[in-house]
Amino acid sequence: MDSKELREAIRNGEFTGTTSGAAGHKVQANLVILPKVYAFDFLLYAMRNKKAVPVIEVIEDGQTKSRFADGSDIRTDVPKYNIYEDGVLRETTDDIRGYWRDDFVTFLIGCSFTFEQAILDEGLSIRHIDERRNVAMYKTNIATDPAGVFGGELVVSMRPFDESEVETVTRVTEQFPEMHGGPVHYGSPHEIGIRDIADPEYGEGVEMREGETPVFWACGVTPQNAALNAKPSIMITHAPGHMFVTDLENEDYRKNN
Amino acid sequence: MDSKELREAIRNGEFTGTTSGAAGHKVQANLVILPKVYAFDFLLYAMRNKKAVPVIEVIEDGQTKSRFADGSDIRTDVPKYNIYEDGVLRETTDDIRGYWRDDFVTFLIGCSFTFEQAILDEGLSIRHIDERRNVAMYKTNIATDPAGVFGGELVVSMRPFDESEVETVTRVTEQFPEMHGGPVHYGSPHEIGIRDIADPEYGEGVEMREGETPVFWACGVTPQNAALNAKPSIMITHAPGHMFVTDLENEDYRKNN
Repeated sequence: MDSKELREAIRNGEFTGTTSGAAGHKVQANLVILPKVYAFDFLLYAMRNKKAVPVIEVIEDGQTKSRFADGSDIRTDVPKYNIYEDGVLRETTDDIRGYWRDDFVTFLIGCSFTFEQAILDEGLSIRHIDERRNVAMYKTNIATDPAGVFGGELVVSMRPFDESEVETVTRVTEQFPEMHGGPVHYGSPHEIGIRDIADPEYGEGVEMREGETPVFWACGVTPQNAALNAKPSIMITHAPGHMFVTDLENEDYRKNN
Repeated sequence: MDSKELREAIRNGEFTGTTSGAAGHKVQANLVILPKVYAFDFLLYAMRNKKAVPVIEVIEDGQTKSRFADGSDIRTDVPKYNIYEDGVLRETTDDIRGYWRDDFVTFLIGCSFTFEQAILDEGLSIRHIDERRNVAMYKTNIATDPAGVFGGELVVSMRPFDESEVETVTRVTEQFPEMHGGPVHYGSPHEIGIRDIADPEYGEGVEMREGETPVFWACGVTPQNAALNAKPSIMITHAPGHMFVTDLENEDYRKNN
């Protein structure tokens, strides 16, 4: 399936699972939908924390189509949405047309699937993909740069690599500065405030093997965390792993640096 | 004077003129102040039109100090401000404390003074600086990418150079992608909708000599033009040539490309 067919299958309820590995080399995006009253603060928060919140597209209030996804409808083309009210998860659903308001602004945010594909293309394997799990994500003690009502700590994703592989994964992911870029840390989890590597706050833990180092990247859950701190009256996101698939090519985001 | 002393002299009314050439190699910025109700649309307009509207800093509502200018006060540290109401110039003043509202958001936007300094450093001369005039600026027929209430045509600044110099000024200004970057056009003004090169819409015309080509760059007046099309209830900008002086170094914005 190409990306347009995949969105249609999602819209029709024929495709309901996670989109990991489902969209070839197309860019997949994190989703955050907020009422316009929060939109300036959120966009400024994103600009100030580009590594964690790389904005691919802003779909203005009153609009439901991504300019980077032919024939798309942001209200139906994500396999699973989370609806938060006042910072509390109210419902998980596959269609948000019933919640839609004309003042909703949609933010599409870069996703680690892009750099994971580049790591795989180097011939390396990624543990949580091999184990068919969601990536392990942790709250850190690294403060983000606040903007308006949004702020809080950086959330990171973790992938273990053999010490001999750390240089390669650093080099490859640095080539995608608009998709979280290079690692923010590797080695001791405690140095960035992670209390227990076996017990992630989001996603699932993975096996750590002898000679392996945990490598940490800024994570697209950071803005969800910031938004939940701010307790907006309503916020809609994708459910973890269930992303919005665009027609953009991952490779178009690779910079030669 | 260093940049902090210059801001103090401006604040105290000791320095009242244009800031062209007054701040050494420090970054000078275009200023746009708008009520927060317009801030999301404006920030999105800037993101979509980075070449014309490169945002250096956003100073949130309720704040008056630039994080890039020690001890600054955005209400007093620009030598001359223009106050627009419903798109009409109401007053030009050297102090906006009387107009200040807690919902005002301030945008500092990159300025061609940065790349002009780099052109001078190459040993080339710039006509309007030699003639002690403000740079010539023109409305074009190139549409900007609209966002919310903001839209309209690109405004460009023009500097004439000998045909043998065009390659050099292109190369040098491309090194400052966050300060308008390389030219958007050179050669025939008519191709980009300029009706009369001798009669600019903003600033002052300059002499064109035998063998010279007009070279056009995206201009920081574009967002003022967009904002005036949108006719916000109130908007405050710097007066042409009377910029906000930061403590940032021009050279820190040079990219090796």
